[in-house]
Amino acid sequence: MDDKNAIYDVLIVGGGAAGLTAALYAARYNLNGLVIAEFFGGQIIEADKICNYPGIAECTGFELMTKFKQSALSSGAKLEQGRVFDIKKEGDYFKIHTIKDKEYLAKTVILAIGTKKRKLGLEKEADYLGKGVSYCFTCDGMFFKGKTVGVVGGSDAAVTAALYFSEISPQVYLIYRGDKLRAEPAWLKSLEKKQNIEVIYQANIIDLYGDGKLEGVVLDKAFKGKDRLSLDGLFIEIGEIPSREFVEPLGLKVDAKGFVVIDDHCQTSVEGIWAAGDFTTGSGGFRQIITAAAEGAVAARDVFDYLKKGEEE
Amino acid sequence: MDDKNAIYDVLIVGGGAAGLTAALYAARYNLNGLVIAEFFGGQIIEADKICNYPGIAECTGFELMTKFKQSALSSGAKLEQGRVFDIKKEGDYFKIHTIKDKEYLAKTVILAIGTKKRKLGLEKEADYLGKGVSYCFTCDGMFFKGKTVGVVGGSDAAVTAALYFSEISPQVYLIYRGDKLRAEPAWLKSLEKKQNIEVIYQANIIDLYGDGKLEGVVLDKAFKGKDRLSLDGLFIEIGEIPSREFVEPLGLKVDAKGFVVIDDHCQTSVEGIWAAGDFTTGSGGFRQIITAAAEGAVAARDVFDYLKKGEEE
Repeated sequence: MDDKNAIYDVLIVGGGAAGLTAALYAARYNLNGLVIAEFFGGQIIEADKICNYPGIAECTGFELMTKFKQSALSSGAKLEQGRVFDIKKEGDYFKIHTIKDKEYLAKTVILAIGTKKRKLGLEKEADYLGKGVSYCFTCDGMFFKGKTVGVVGGSDAAVTAALYFSEISPQVYLIYRGDKLRAEPAWLKSLEKKQNIEVIYQANIIDLYGDGKLEGVVLDKAFKGKDRLSLDGLFIEIGEIPSREFVEPLGLKVDAKGFVVIDDHCQTSVEGIWAAGDFTTGSGGFRQIITAAAEGAVAARDVFDYLKKGEEE
Repeated sequence: MDDKNAIYDVLIVGGGAAGLTAALYAARYNLNGLVIAEFFGGQIIEADKICNYPGIAECTGFELMTKFKQSALSSGAKLEQGRVFDIKKEGDYFKIHTIKDKEYLAKTVILAIGTKKRKLGLEKEADYLGKGVSYCFTCDGMFFKGKTVGVVGGSDAAVTAALYFSEISPQVYLIYRGDKLRAEPAWLKSLEKKQNIEVIYQANIIDLYGDGKLEGVVLDKAFKGKDRLSLDGLFIEIGEIPSREFVEPLGLKVDAKGFVVIDDHCQTSVEGIWAAGDFTTGSGGFRQIITAAAEGAVAARDVFDYLKKGEEE
């Protein structure tokens, strides 16, 4: 059976913790499955340090996701690099198209497409991207060794970024609009010990400046008497928005924030489509590697049950 | 503060995947937590091979759970060997007693006490564990690809196991003591279509045989003229019994099978008590290491939120 005529039991879109674990389980249930992802590992490959995935000692996100990929492959999962741009139900099957004009047929779909980094929404934000502004300290952090860096945000992502820069930069500013950081207390404890991280609370960045490359930001309230803060680099870590591809065309139910609603079997509101990981409402909204992976496992198992029941109809 | 007078933020009962992950997360949230378990690792330490925990290559259950324990300890979790026999709410706190007459006070409790596999009760059953006999086809099924497999039981678990093996094994026997399988009709219809599954009704296994590893079983009634049936593997799927300690005294809501009902934040029906892992209704009833661990993480995070809210009030 060549790929062109294959009808997959399940097509998994997304190659992060949820997609790779769904693939692992689908393979263990002997389903004819395929994972399509633009890249494997998901957003977590940007993470500098992972300390909370049980069973694996501190490592980078890239290292952990390389292991996830190995686990999926070892179980017999098939992975394919590609970008899905269209999913349609046609008759009994879902028809999936990638931008390289490949077409796939599948009985069921598991969406595990994650989230995207939220942007500040400043007029000049895109102009300075790669010229001082970045959304990924793991990718770009080292270019700012010895330089003054600002991090925006108050969550785990922002605080861990600040901690990272405190090791390589003389001065780090953590700029947060709220009055109390929301990161894990373990990270906050580490933060308190750092002499070279200064937290600027209740401040918003309203503009960026610099000739060709970023030289600083303008704050909406004065800091040390000035509304301008000189920075060589600005790392924006203000959260994530659930990916929206396929959601509207497929008519998937979402919550008020746009996360795809799933039940405790990871079924979406549309028959034949499951969803797992960060862009869903699963696990009480607690978005971690371990919860994304568990949802991927639950989805694959439920697809198995669904297909076995369907065989009789 | 010595142990005697300590009031723990959270006391976690049970040392399997759920309990250890709850401990890891509780420590990362800087909660003053303690895990009490009779032994660490949970039921999974019996598993000969684990291939479905993402990120970790094939290993034994014992090896995997040793890594889980290390993860919990690295994050600062405190583990204590002991057997809890009583949990009572007294005023604002839970009072927990162990059989060694130790007493603990805690603001919240996470129960992660697992299930017990129902056993056939044969004299040699334990001797062949990991040598042909297994209680978990998801864990061990793939090792019997191409081999003759027997499954014991008549429920969904047994029938789905038989269906699973029908795809990878030349011949599958489903051995059931009753005269009518109890699985969902949908499963039974799928079963009927399988040429390589033979159901042996009204039969009980009364003995196991084999030199070092399992070679077959002895039935209490002749099958095709013989009371011996050659098998490479025997999967005993006659159910799990959720641990019942604390359930009645605490008044925890359970489902028809006795599993503790939890919501998507792993809260039980009793304020201040969370539950995670195999003995709960979580993860759509899919009971795996990865789902137990995720539930432990969700429970610990929710305890943190609960205690923080309490502080603000």
